[in-house]
Amino acid sequence: MKTLLTERFGLEYPVIQAPMAFAAGGALAAAASRGGALGMIGGGYGDPEWIRTQYDLAGDARVGCGFITWRLSQQPWLLDEILERKPVAVFLSFGDPAPYAEKILNNDTALVCQVQTLKDARRAVEVGADVIVAQGAEAGGHGEIRGAMALVPEISDEIARLDSNALLVAAGGISDGRGLAAARVLGAEGIVMGTRYWASREALVLPKIHQAAIAATGDETVRTRILDMVRGFEWPERYTARAHFNDFLRQWHGREDVFQNGLEQQREAWEKTQKSGDPANSAIFVGEGLGLIAEIISAEDIARIVSVQASDILAGKDAG
Amino acid sequence: MKTLLTERFGLEYPVIQAPMAFAAGGALAAAASRGGALGMIGGGYGDPEWIRTQYDLAGDARVGCGFITWRLSQQPWLLDEILERKPVAVFLSFGDPAPYAEKILNNDTALVCQVQTLKDARRAVEVGADVIVAQGAEAGGHGEIRGAMALVPEISDEIARLDSNALLVAAGGISDGRGLAAARVLGAEGIVMGTRYWASREALVLPKIHQAAIAATGDETVRTRILDMVRGFEWPERYTARAHFNDFLRQWHGREDVFQNGLEQQREAWEKTQKSGDPANSAIFVGEGLGLIAEIISAEDIARIVSVQASDILAGKDAG
Repeated sequence: MKTLLTERFGLEYPVIQAPMAFAAGGALAAAASRGGALGMIGGGYGDPEWIRTQYDLAGDARVGCGFITWRLSQQPWLLDEILERKPVAVFLSFGDPAPYAEKILNNDTALVCQVQTLKDARRAVEVGADVIVAQGAEAGGHGEIRGAMALVPEISDEIARLDSNALLVAAGGISDGRGLAAARVLGAEGIVMGTRYWASREALVLPKIHQAAIAATGDETVRTRILDMVRGFEWPERYTARAHFNDFLRQWHGREDVFQNGLEQQREAWEKTQKSGDPANSAIFVGEGLGLIAEIISAEDIARIVSVQASDILAGKDAG
Repeated sequence: MKTLLTERFGLEYPVIQAPMAFAAGGALAAAASRGGALGMIGGGYGDPEWIRTQYDLAGDARVGCGFITWRLSQQPWLLDEILERKPVAVFLSFGDPAPYAEKILNNDTALVCQVQTLKDARRAVEVGADVIVAQGAEAGGHGEIRGAMALVPEISDEIARLDSNALLVAAGGISDGRGLAAARVLGAEGIVMGTRYWASREALVLPKIHQAAIAATGDETVRTRILDMVRGFEWPERYTARAHFNDFLRQWHGREDVFQNGLEQQREAWEKTQKSGDPANSAIFVGEGLGLIAEIISAEDIARIVSVQASDILAGKDAG
């Protein structure tokens, strides 16, 4: 499947692997790229040592790097360091991309801006984004509340109205070829997939966490602040994180006040549990597309499988 | 565009007009049906006089009728009265359809069950629904939190797994042909549109409310409980209503406790304002698809315009 996105980045398939914090290391990014997609290291909260190690693990694979934008402002030098590695793209989410845009573009690196509202899409056009990812609330991990179904075409119209050359990519709830086909007809040049790549052998996820998650349906996720509270991450109010609605979240989600009051104790208990990797009490950031995933496969195979399915669907559906 | 839905109901287009409480009267249902869709009277909260009047206004148009399921249990005789009018379909949303399913099916009336989760879709299959509407959180009015992008294909898989003949229809955030095309490739046989029909000349909506709403973008809606609180409707906890995020909601949404404490006063002020039809202080139930709507048109034209656009898109996109 060729689109403006595959042309722009020389990809085999119109697929970007989401730069998921913690889960998307060098092995995943490299495997996604070998498999014809655009692989991304999840720079996330910006742990320099971790990012260096993962970049080294990616070897000479053509990969990009993602950052949590509001967090990057605490150590802007990290962007310079990454730019020296000549990433294919820098993927910025959750915050104003303006302070970093020029530097990225001047480095001959593509600027990918992930947005959750029409308003933020306008900002992305303004700063010269090469790619705008319209992320629906279905997505795993952090995001906002608008669904992909209306957000994608609305941003598509806006990009056209502003006469911008930015390429639109859809994200949120897309785990198979049906989602890619839907993204295409809604006006996107490709997709970002997180959960589908999270559920791959190369993702940095414990096998028992993988198994617990893929046994769940798409009904069993929730957008919450609890996991940021216990981890001590000061996310801007507008963003919540979608995660598997496991025992821990069933106990605390919706009881944020009580949780906050006992936060010290909660953190101690949390840190003990994390070492054991207990799925019932861990942070498992997955999206609603979880319900479309039946097994853990290699990230190398994902873009091909999804794209072939999408091509078959689009070839089969016509006006009749 | 022919699908199993058009075949089943003898429609020209695979489109169902949502039975929106208050807005979807007989004139809208009849116009939607004349325009090749399946028109629906919004039985809503079950005001018998209103429903009778609207049914009479629909004349001999082939229409169906929708109910808020949990509310129907307060006056189940209303279903018997409507069934005597031989509606094409009864459209049940928000509650367990089991107490009504057999009676509807025995009346040679199609049973349409609107669901918001995979779990409820299983229940709809169990009670023998002819049509299952997978309603994403993007939708206007009442609903839940799952987005259409992953919910539709997940329910599609489940209907197949259960070996059911129920037809799947997608709802939520669909206002034009791109949404219909997306619904088709996600596995649905058609769509339900609410907001698009709400923004039609035949809907029971004041012109100044129409104008205020279509000037807004899809960013400017919110899922809230405030409007049910002020109207005194005891909705089950799981459902919230999406509405235009106007001044009234900007003032109160997120401050439900304060609002509840002053509810008596709020209601008095509310009722006064409703008479003037002030858009800034009214309940304007619209979905995120609002951002795709530029003008108020006749409901007779909607299904055709949307279907022709979808057919063109699907004919134009192929594997390449």
